[in-house]
Formats: sequence, structure tokens, C-alpha cells
Amino acid sequence: MNKIDLKNIKEYLNKEITVKGFVDTVRDLQYVQFLIIRDNTSKLQITIEKNEENTKLNEIVSSLSLESTIEAKGTLLESPAVKLNGVEFIPTQIIVTSKCNGELPINYKNPQSSQLDTKLDYRFLDLRHAKNNLMFKVQTTFVNAMREFLLEKEFIEIHTPKLIGAASESGADVFEISYFDNKAYLSQSPQFYKQMAMASGFEKIFEVGPVFRAEKSFTNRHTTEFTGFDIEFSYIDSYEDVMKLEEELLIYALTKVKEKYGDEIQTLFKKDIIIPQKSFPVIKLEDLYNELEKRYKYKIPNEEKTDLTTEAEKLSYKFSMEEYGSEFLFVTDYKPEKRPFYHMRKNGMPQGYDLIWKGVEITTGAQREHRYDVLKEQAEEKGLDKDVEFYLDFFKYGCPPHGGFGIGVDRVTMLLLGMSTIKESMFLFRGPNRLTP
Amino acid sequence: MNKIDLKNIKEYLNKEITVKGFVDTVRDLQYVQFLIIRDNTSKLQITIEKNEENTKLNEIVSSLSLESTIEAKGTLLESPAVKLNGVEFIPTQIIVTSKCNGELPINYKNPQSSQLDTKLDYRFLDLRHAKNNLMFKVQTTFVNAMREFLLEKEFIEIHTPKLIGAASESGADVFEISYFDNKAYLSQSPQFYKQMAMASGFEKIFEVGPVFRAEKSFTNRHTTEFTGFDIEFSYIDSYEDVMKLEEELLIYALTKVKEKYGDEIQTLFKKDIIIPQKSFPVIKLEDLYNELEKRYKYKIPNEEKTDLTTEAEKLSYKFSMEEYGSEFLFVTDYKPEKRPFYHMRKNGMPQGYDLIWKGVEITTGAQREHRYDVLKEQAEEKGLDKDVEFYLDFFKYGCPPHGGFGIGVDRVTMLLLGMSTIKESMFLFRGPNRLTP
Repeated sequence: MNKIDLKNIKEYLNKEITVKGFVDTVRDLQYVQFLIIRDNTSKLQITIEKNEENTKLNEIVSSLSLESTIEAKGTLLESPAVKLNGVEFIPTQIIVTSKCNGELPINYKNPQSSQLDTKLDYRFLDLRHAKNNLMFKVQTTFVNAMREFLLEKEFIEIHTPKLIGAASESGADVFEISYFDNKAYLSQSPQFYKQMAMASGFEKIFEVGPVFRAEKSFTNRHTTEFTGFDIEFSYIDSYEDVMKLEEELLIYALTKVKEKYGDEIQTLFKKDIIIPQKSFPVIKLEDLYNELEKRYKYKIPNEEKTDLTTEAEKLSYKFSMEEYGSEFLFVTDYKPEKRPFYHMRKNGMPQGYDLIWKGVEITTGAQREHRYDVLKEQAEEKGLDKDVEFYLDFFKYGCPPHGGFGIGVDRVTMLLLGMSTIKESMFLFRGPNRLTP
Repeated sequence: MNKIDLKNIKEYLNKEITVKGFVDTVRDLQYVQFLIIRDNTSKLQITIEKNEENTKLNEIVSSLSLESTIEAKGTLLESPAVKLNGVEFIPTQIIVTSKCNGELPINYKNPQSSQLDTKLDYRFLDLRHAKNNLMFKVQTTFVNAMREFLLEKEFIEIHTPKLIGAASESGADVFEISYFDNKAYLSQSPQFYKQMAMASGFEKIFEVGPVFRAEKSFTNRHTTEFTGFDIEFSYIDSYEDVMKLEEELLIYALTKVKEKYGDEIQTLFKKDIIIPQKSFPVIKLEDLYNELEKRYKYKIPNEEKTDLTTEAEKLSYKFSMEEYGSEFLFVTDYKPEKRPFYHMRKNGMPQGYDLIWKGVEITTGAQREHRYDVLKEQAEEKGLDKDVEFYLDFFKYGCPPHGGFGIGVDRVTMLLLGMSTIKESMFLFRGPNRLTP
């Protein structure tokens, strides 16, 4: 960890130091060689005059392929004429620490020049693009700000099993695993287990981990594996407590992102991070459909209004901006047939919400049904009581009222930076036709 | 989130408040009822005199089953005679928010009274034990202290796919998944992908996520799924840089745990958290075997000395305490046949280490081979070159020198608190014969 980050290079003016990085560009001119190296913080110009003293260095640079990595010993000089931070590095030694063998299969510096699938094939090169590098710094800050917010409130972090014995929840869309002489399944949500933590008296928990969906979806926001940020907490009075926590959490995390990377995001993504205000607007599903019809002539049959269609989601963004000036919109009062059995109901109405950000659903949240008898009945109604027996057991021996929600980290990253597809906002995308690299 | 944590209850003396928790004990006497409720921070005594005014409350308490959850409205009074913090709560209203239906299948307050397997069957009750509750608070602090340490150094957090297209690394011990009309496998380590991040110029990364091992092991420290904390970083000079980072990281995290929970751990686990000193002792495998033979007459055939046996691991604890007064011991110079092909070698010797804590291996770390040609050769030598072709590609187009390590979070939790088995240091254990609850 003695490596000097190039963004801090000016601290070392006139000192003999070693610098390290990828070879970003080489200009081999008649009397001088210019080399620009890059690390994940900045870039640096290395200048080597062509003369007898430098024969060895000149040879190294002449045969240097772009994207190789080097380390160079030498001195950093002030040099106002140099565009890159007004400094240049004069080396006495250059070591090639790894060679780039031949031409890159994609020109990652010009993302438009390759098809999406080719870029995904060579994601390890695609990720060298400054935007991609920044994307994961931003995601790191966003996720850790959410953790920080929760830890400050003494939430406990749990790690629930992804290997499960029974095809959970909906029964469908679950991957099956050969488990020694048996079968197992991949967890499609930590839902049951985060509620188990409530029955165990953990009170406030979160988990960040992979979530698996065996769905043959080919949209720009679906994937078979993504990172879920899941939260559950006890002793709530209603799902409004859940909404309140979520909006505070998001405001906190977005503020941290803007503070740290707002300018860079503006430069590279041409995006402003807008910090939302409390409280986010809330509208009932039915009222939203009425508004969409009234304002935008969006009309669908009543029987489809149990849930928000993709088109309605998109229009809701327009509506929310016009009516409330808010990118975020809570939608409540979904019909029971479209909500899972474990959502609490009051007078038949599920006590939960979806949170729509820029026209895309990023969260489903709810107060859960914590009373064994009622929960069992609701499971029976959906024909799931046998499948979820182990889960129902959690509620037999006392469990405080509780609620929670989950956020798709990759989807939020996509929306935050205005990417057009989740395939490019994940470290490595997984879909029905993609398991590599 | 308006719930009052019972540990802060004294802030509300003589005020009308609502308290919430599990019913921990009930004493129903001739003239008075004592109720103790518990949340995950503390306990509180609720006192209800038996009189006409309280008829309704008295009835509720009489029929109250232990482990139900309640909320009670009333006033908190100073009451020096009460053992629990010198306060008691006088309710005007009690609402039973969930009922415990019948007797608990395990007596979680007396862990010795149940077999391990029964406790695991009812883990959701077992976790109500104060020790288990504390365990996950400690783990939360430990893991997040490690994250904090790395974030401060601007590490990027990544989430690598657990669904992979080829049975990686060793080829064995991997779970197979039905993936639509194809096969996929569960990642047994993020190794290849965290190195990919180095090739992508991410420079410093970490990941906390599940790791899957299809091993039919039934020891007290093996499981088919556990939480790995993985780290990888670039521009190192040797594996000693990796060891240095790891020891700083562990010292930081253990210090945070001790500060926050040292006293509680002492009370409940009778364990002192010992903060190790820099630098941890380092010994070569061969020298360690010589010491174990000399000191403890531990003798095994030379051909078994390529790796550390479980017995030798245990003895190394004794040795390390005697010789260095250190719970931690780095062991280096393992033979190439026992190390993966991606460890860099110098004069044939793998440039890595194991870290042994209290006689148990918690980490394997190394400098990686980042040069394509050498790496390919080493893969060929192990007969893996075809299987890992996609991985070898990562190194074709430049990749800085790098290294890293992984820590098993559950195993470290076990050692930290002196648990006898990993089955009890995980939220939910998974083994060849256990997929539930």
C-alpha cells in the first residue's frame, strides 16, 4: 500500500518517487517521448527525451503497448505547459510489470463502437472506462451510506442462507440445485429469514446480498441475479413507519453521493443528483390511474388496475414531477391479489407500497402480518400454506409487529446515473442467456 | 421508529410513554402482578397492583403467555427497590400484539437442555438467547469496522456473480444448478472476479457475500455456505504487503469490537478480546513443523508436511503463545502442490500465507500471478488451463501486480466468542444434511 495515488501526485514535487499505472497513451516523437499513465484516481504525463543517456528508456517506451502496466522511478517536476495538472515525471527507470498482448478486442474508450453483447463479453476491459470506474465508486458510497444510516440506529447486519430447502414464496421462478443426494433451491429473497430475525427479537436488521430470479425476462431492468438491500424492523405502528424510514434512508444516501461525487457525475454522466425533500408524495393506486387518465388520456381496463403497468409507471414520473416536483412517488393500496400473502391487510387492503423513482419501481415495502392465525389464513387463501409451513412456524411463539422493504442496488445505480440498462450497471450481468465471463 | 429502547428508559422518568417488548417473565402474586418485558437492548419491570381499578389489566396479565409481545401505555417511576435498573412501569393499558401459542419446543434460556440439532431446528427461538443476540451485534460491528477501514482507504465494494458458467478453480466441490435449458454452478469463491476487477483497473476492492462449498464435511468449522469477506488490491511489491494490510485490518476491527462490546462479551461469554500487536509473527511451514516436533514431539511423515494438518494447526496455537505471546500466526512457504495455480511463485515457492488464529486457519492470502504467460503455464501444470480459459483472458491485456485474501466471517465470529462450533455462530447453518429452516 505504498503506491502513490496519482490524484495526490503534487505532494511529491521535486522528490524521487515511484509511480505506477496503466499505459494510457504513448506519443513517440522525433526528439521526445510522452507517456501518459493512468490509475483509478487520475493520470500523469511521463516525459523522456531522446538522447544517449536515455537509450534504454527510449527502447522500452518504443516497444510499449498501450494498456500494459508499468512502474517508473524518477522525479516529478512542475511544468506549467503540461495540460495534465501542470506536472511531468522524468524517469530514470521504467519497469513493465505486465504486457498487453496485442490489440484490445473492444475499444473501451469509445463505448459506442461496440455492441452491448460484445462489451459484456469483454466486461473486464469495458470496466476500464472512467465512467464505469466512477459508477462503482458511486455505488460503494451509496450502499455504505445506507449501511451507515442504519448502523447509527443500531440495526444488526445478518447473512441469511441462499441455499434453501423448499421452493419459497411464490413457488415459481426458483433455481433448483443438486444438493448431494437431494434438491435445494436458490433463495429469491431474504424475506422469510429477515422476518425470522424479528421473531428472534433482533428488532432491526438489514442484509446486503445476492437475490436469484429464474425469470426468462429480457428487459433492460431484469436479471437472474442482483444485489438486494433488505431491511426489516419491529414495533412499527403501520406501514407509514416503513415509508418514513425509507425516505430518510434515501435522502441520507443520495446526499452522501452528491457530496462526494456530484461534480464527477456531472462531468462524466451529465447528470445532476437531486436530493429529494421529505416527505415523498403518496398516492393511492386507484387515484393514480384516475390522474393518468385525466391528464394523459392513459386508459386501461379496470381489471388491469390491480397493479401498476410498466407504461403507467413511466407516466407516473411525469405526473409526480408535474404535481409534486418529485422524482420519487409512493403508491399505496394495491389490491390483495397482486400482493404477497405476508403483507398485513386492514379491511382487506394490503398495508404496503411501491416506491417509484423516475418512473421505475425500486422498492416494495409493507407492514407484515405477524399474527400466526391471520398469516396462516392468508397463506391458505393463496394455496401456499403447505409450502410455507416452516415459515409460519416462526410466528407461533410470539413475534412483534414489524415491516420492511428491499431495494435493488443495481437498479438504483442504473437510475442514479441515468444508464439505459441494468446490464451496464452491474459488475457482471447475468441473464437467461448470459453466464459469462 | 418511535419505539423507546429499554436501555434508555430512564430518560422517561415520570412521563407517560408506551413501552414494547417480549414477555420475559410473569409473577402473578396474591396482591400484585410483576411482568418483565425484554427488547434487544434491556429489560423492564411492569408492576400492576391487583385491585378493582386494574381488573382488566389483571385479567390480561393472568392469561398472558410467556414470549408473547405486548405494548403497554403508562408511567415510569423511580423505584430503588426494583433490581432492574431501579425503575418500574405502571401501566394504564396493555395490548397483546402477538400471542405465544403454547409451550416453546425448546427452552432457549437454558441452551444445555436441548440437543444441537433440536436447537438448529428451532433456531428462530434459539436466537432469542441474549448470547446469540449479542453475537450478531458483535459480528455486525466486526464486519462493518473492516469495511470502514477499507473505505477510508478508498476501496471499492463489488458484488460478483454467484451464478457461474463453468465449474471453477478446482472443478470439484461445486453445486450444479438447472439454469433454464442449461447448467450453471454456484461460485465457491469470488477469487476470479476480484482479480478481474484488478484487470479492470479498480485497484482496491472488497466483497462481502456468500460462498458455496459442496463438501461433505461434518466438522465443527465446515459448512456448505458461509459469508466470505474478500479483499484484493493492486500495485503491491510482495505478499508481505498483503499480510501487512490484513494485520492492520484485524487490529482495527478487533479494537472496535472491544470498545463497543468488550464488557458485554466478558459478562456473557467470559471471553477477553485481546487486541493483537503489530507485526504478527511469521514462520515458514517447515520451521513450524520442526518447532512442533522439537517442543511437543509432534511427528508426521515428511510427505504430509506440504500443508498444515488440523492437529498441527492446534499445536501452532500453543507454540505461538509460548514463543511470541500471540494468538495470531502467519505461516508461509507452503509447497506449490497444495496451493492454487494463481499464487505467484518465486524460485518455485508460492508467495502466500495462511493466517492461523487460536489454532484455526482463518485466511489464505497471496500475491497473485498477474503475468499471462506464467499464469497459463501454472494452470496447465495443474491441468486446469481449459477450464479457466475465460479467467486467463483477464490477464491478456495488462493487469497490475496484485494480491489479496479472504476471511470467513462465521469462522472468525466463532473464534472471537469462543463458540465450539460454526453451527452456532451462523444465523442459519447449512450442511450436507441441513437445509432448514
